[in-house]
Amino acid sequence: MGNFGLRDALDGRWAHVRQAAREQLAGSRFVAVPGESLDRSRERISRLLRELPIDPGIAAGFPIAYGGSADPGGSAVAAEMLAQLDLSLMVKAGVQWGLFGGAVVALGTAKHHDAYLRDIISADLLGCFAMTETGHGSDVQQLRTTCTYDPETGTFDLHTPHEAARKDYIGNAARDGRMAVVFAQLITGGRGYGVHAWLVPIRDDEGRPLPGVTLGDDGPKAGLLGVDNGRISFDHVSVPREMLLDRYGQVAPDGTYSSPIEDDSRRFFTMLGTLVRGRVVVGGAASAATKNALTIAVRYGEVRRQFAAPGERREIALNDYLAHQRTLLTALATTYALSFAQEELVSTLHEIQTADRPVDEHRQRELESRAAGLKAAQTWHATRTIQACREALGGAGYLAENRLAGLKADTDVFTTFEGDNTVLLQLVAKGLLTGYRDTFGSLDGWGRATFVAEQVREMVLERTAARSLIQRLIDAVPGRGEQVALTDRGWHLAMFEDRERHLLDGVIRRLRAGASRKPARSFDIFNDVQDHVLSVASAHVDRVVLEAFVAGIARTTDPDARDLLSKMCDLYALTTIEAHKGWYLEHQRLTPPRSKAVTGMVNDLLKQLRPRLVDLVDAFAIPDEWLACAVLREEPERQEAMAAHDLLPMPEPASSAR
Amino acid sequence: MGNFGLRDALDGRWAHVRQAAREQLAGSRFVAVPGESLDRSRERISRLLRELPIDPGIAAGFPIAYGGSADPGGSAVAAEMLAQLDLSLMVKAGVQWGLFGGAVVALGTAKHHDAYLRDIISADLLGCFAMTETGHGSDVQQLRTTCTYDPETGTFDLHTPHEAARKDYIGNAARDGRMAVVFAQLITGGRGYGVHAWLVPIRDDEGRPLPGVTLGDDGPKAGLLGVDNGRISFDHVSVPREMLLDRYGQVAPDGTYSSPIEDDSRRFFTMLGTLVRGRVVVGGAASAATKNALTIAVRYGEVRRQFAAPGERREIALNDYLAHQRTLLTALATTYALSFAQEELVSTLHEIQTADRPVDEHRQRELESRAAGLKAAQTWHATRTIQACREALGGAGYLAENRLAGLKADTDVFTTFEGDNTVLLQLVAKGLLTGYRDTFGSLDGWGRATFVAEQVREMVLERTAARSLIQRLIDAVPGRGEQVALTDRGWHLAMFEDRERHLLDGVIRRLRAGASRKPARSFDIFNDVQDHVLSVASAHVDRVVLEAFVAGIARTTDPDARDLLSKMCDLYALTTIEAHKGWYLEHQRLTPPRSKAVTGMVNDLLKQLRPRLVDLVDAFAIPDEWLACAVLREEPERQEAMAAHDLLPMPEPASSAR
Repeated sequence: MGNFGLRDALDGRWAHVRQAAREQLAGSRFVAVPGESLDRSRERISRLLRELPIDPGIAAGFPIAYGGSADPGGSAVAAEMLAQLDLSLMVKAGVQWGLFGGAVVALGTAKHHDAYLRDIISADLLGCFAMTETGHGSDVQQLRTTCTYDPETGTFDLHTPHEAARKDYIGNAARDGRMAVVFAQLITGGRGYGVHAWLVPIRDDEGRPLPGVTLGDDGPKAGLLGVDNGRISFDHVSVPREMLLDRYGQVAPDGTYSSPIEDDSRRFFTMLGTLVRGRVVVGGAASAATKNALTIAVRYGEVRRQFAAPGERREIALNDYLAHQRTLLTALATTYALSFAQEELVSTLHEIQTADRPVDEHRQRELESRAAGLKAAQTWHATRTIQACREALGGAGYLAENRLAGLKADTDVFTTFEGDNTVLLQLVAKGLLTGYRDTFGSLDGWGRATFVAEQVREMVLERTAARSLIQRLIDAVPGRGEQVALTDRGWHLAMFEDRERHLLDGVIRRLRAGASRKPARSFDIFNDVQDHVLSVASAHVDRVVLEAFVAGIARTTDPDARDLLSKMCDLYALTTIEAHKGWYLEHQRLTPPRSKAVTGMVNDLLKQLRPRLVDLVDAFAIPDEWLACAVLREEPERQEAMAAHDLLPMPEPASSAR
Repeated sequence: MGNFGLRDALDGRWAHVRQAAREQLAGSRFVAVPGESLDRSRERISRLLRELPIDPGIAAGFPIAYGGSADPGGSAVAAEMLAQLDLSLMVKAGVQWGLFGGAVVALGTAKHHDAYLRDIISADLLGCFAMTETGHGSDVQQLRTTCTYDPETGTFDLHTPHEAARKDYIGNAARDGRMAVVFAQLITGGRGYGVHAWLVPIRDDEGRPLPGVTLGDDGPKAGLLGVDNGRISFDHVSVPREMLLDRYGQVAPDGTYSSPIEDDSRRFFTMLGTLVRGRVVVGGAASAATKNALTIAVRYGEVRRQFAAPGERREIALNDYLAHQRTLLTALATTYALSFAQEELVSTLHEIQTADRPVDEHRQRELESRAAGLKAAQTWHATRTIQACREALGGAGYLAENRLAGLKADTDVFTTFEGDNTVLLQLVAKGLLTGYRDTFGSLDGWGRATFVAEQVREMVLERTAARSLIQRLIDAVPGRGEQVALTDRGWHLAMFEDRERHLLDGVIRRLRAGASRKPARSFDIFNDVQDHVLSVASAHVDRVVLEAFVAGIARTTDPDARDLLSKMCDLYALTTIEAHKGWYLEHQRLTPPRSKAVTGMVNDLLKQLRPRLVDLVDAFAIPDEWLACAVLREEPERQEAMAAHDLLPMPEPASSAR
């Protein structure tokens, strides 16, 4: 087809990483195996993990001194590529190099790096990221595991006080992990200093649990069978003082605590902030898997035919049905949009994590907020879209051999892992309410959030990408309302921005009114407007995504690609406006006739884009073998056989009624 | 709790069947086993199938003369109960007694009944319903398998002409089936008479495929591992003349074809119409599984706490968060609504299938349309709601031991099996467009549907339930617009009806305009309005559901139950109006202030219903052992341990920032 322009636009800044993956991981060797048992899957994934290339690869994020290439952006993009092969493999690699290794790099100091990083990168030392507990997932600041320093022995006592405090859902815990980065409440001198992390051995060389360590298996899951998630409890396990990952907090031999960040909560969220890549990677992986699903569904819909049109001998291709386009093409437009937003997010991550000096806190908070919002948007979009793709294949979509069942099952956990999506959207909203100032509540929830109501200030919406271009487009919108073309980009941008701003203003007003009324429980002030707050976050994410799409088009030089992207951007913008037309009409941002015209224009765009539908998925450039979908290989032949057969003089079914 | 009033209202007319199932199938013996392998699951389900009670049970639908109890309604309700235990078991039983046995009853005659029904009921003869082909699922009128009569031998020649014509996704085909009801094009005397069914042996007593029969295995699927779906091809298999299931079409020894229904297409859809129970059962099973999921999520949300409110020691229960209520309580209200609609559908099915004389065609078509619409509504609702419940359990929801993963995987196929939901909604719309007249296109699609455009006539919306009550409520609405209370039932009914009627009028107008314009392809006339047509169907289903809910409340005598149901009905009605507020505002059926007030009232209802949330799921009366959810058993204890532990003088985390 030769849509290299489109493909280049999507491949973006780390095109070389994507291309290297397509070559180094070519064939079906690293591709998910349908219908595999738990044991075989774990065995295969553990084996393949050690065969993955380091560079480019997820391990590319490590410092050059230890064998990495200090390329956090490349590492995130490499994870996306693995997600197109096998999500178990991607998550296993993410646990090992992203979460476990990443925590050692970010929270540890030179002694830890020198001692462990090489073995971590080579996968000779497999490890866990033991943060979540059975009782605390979203509110990790309240973890119940304790790690208490005793100056007499010079060691910490790591302890799980009750079952709710056991570590749970921990990758590498059930089978492979030899060490774990364990998060627990640091206690010294009879005082708690909040959550810190220790590097703790959990298994001996033969894989037996070490004394005091109890290891459990989370057993079969909805998907990701190749990842050995499990549980870890500690019964007064002695941990040497040096094993505290002490970049942000040190304990002297005598038990004196010191830290460059005085405030416990601020310190904790600073530590968490260094681990933001995990969330970036999960969002990107969700979108990558969505691309596999859409490629399968679109290619199938192109060859699969059902129901003959009157007067026509051949049946209609599924892709020719408006309802099918309404499902697949609109999801594809959103996938494109999210792709550009993810690219921008990865770039920001890369800039911040490779900066020569520490970036200002505002930028760091903004990155965390964006990572949270895009993770939620991309994972929910994946869940919805993969489901739609599976339905678009009918019964074939339900068979494991056609891949969608696995994509669906594997990505399902993403909506709640690395942060529950609803909690993440609250985090985004809180960032907006406080302008990213003083919000050390990255994983913070509703309960204690009323303080925000007193802190809210007038918001200045901050542009994310291509600031001046976007302002120019908005300024160029000729007047308001009916006259403006429905495909005017400035109008789209203004509509998105208006929705975000107005929703935000409304929440601020309602929070202030609530605070002044003083209800029985201060919790109610926030809870009463929770739905409104979540819609602010979602409107914000929509705007961030549209702006990234606009910036991405501006970077594209190939005229055909630019034109196609521009139409896809129209489709994304208008389906988003259509989805929220209730709000726009309520607030008189759309008149009823114009609202109806939006729907008409969406259908019109579907017609315009229909002939390029296959090109649009081809541009994802996913190797055929990575799709691993049996029906894609078989269906064209079947359709040919059927068409050939129909040409034989077979008795016609009696057809008076047709 | 003592909510027997609510439970009785939900248990409805076949309460005795539900109660018998709760007793006969008590304990965990028949409950789904998480994480089971394909082979073990198939073995277990095959074994349990033979241990299921016949009465009440799915087999209750068979004639009394052969050991059934001629209770098609009871049979459908028994299937719902099985769905709460194990969906594989329910589907396996549905294949054996509903599809296979049901086809022998409905399409066969006394000779077939006498020869096979007893063995079918006892499960000594396991069989398949071999309709769908790889190449034709939705458009079954176009099946490619042929069955050609040869008067010389007095036998049919059953043949699969190419791979697209092989039978596919057939339950009982991969392992257990000994015979199959095979659907194929009947050809005799050089002429085709459309699709008919034959009873064909496929395996010998040892389970080996018979000569000319090729059996394949669909292998692992997304779910329903206990059902052995497979493929069947025939290579000129000789089938005795008597094995034609000849109730609707006979072939004399000399090859002369005769039928009580002359028109081939009309005959085919009449035959299909007798099999409507399958669709009714799938919709009911989807809702039954949804009730399991909601029971799990609501009970978990009641004990699970996360994030402390300011000034409070204990963390907040998930069910207290507005966003959680917005997800679970609104889904619960829709589940209640669908429950009453399903009850009404099953009653109609029962009346029609136990009537002394043939019912008029109009009633039969209406039943089929309603079965199609409610199947689509219930299965999509199940997919969405079970997903939401799984997310509401966070990481725990992803573990197989907590049941939701299995519920999700197993129900997933329902959106496309027994008819793809989109195709089914088209069928509903077509029924509305033609007033159920002359629509012998039960599985018909878009292609040939332009004829409808010429047939459309003015619609009279037909009430479904409690006609006079509903008309009285609508007539009693005081005036229009702003003054009417948002909880006025007549206003809800009028709003639903108005949306359906207006959408339908609009489609008719657009179809007529399209037909008069004569586009290049007549296919385009319909395709251009396909989204509009689907929204008509969906509006129609919404109204049918609301009317059934209203009729169900009218039947309820217990005052507390009536009050709760009435609030749930408010919630269902208002969330539906809220979901379509864009449409209502576009068409000036809602003013902007009233539209915003709807959202306010929904939130208000959530607050009112919150204290009864657990009662509302308890009323489903699902035995604890049927929920089979590990975390429900463990979490209360954990929360207690955590609360007890917090009372110890544990060092407080430093908290200047909190």
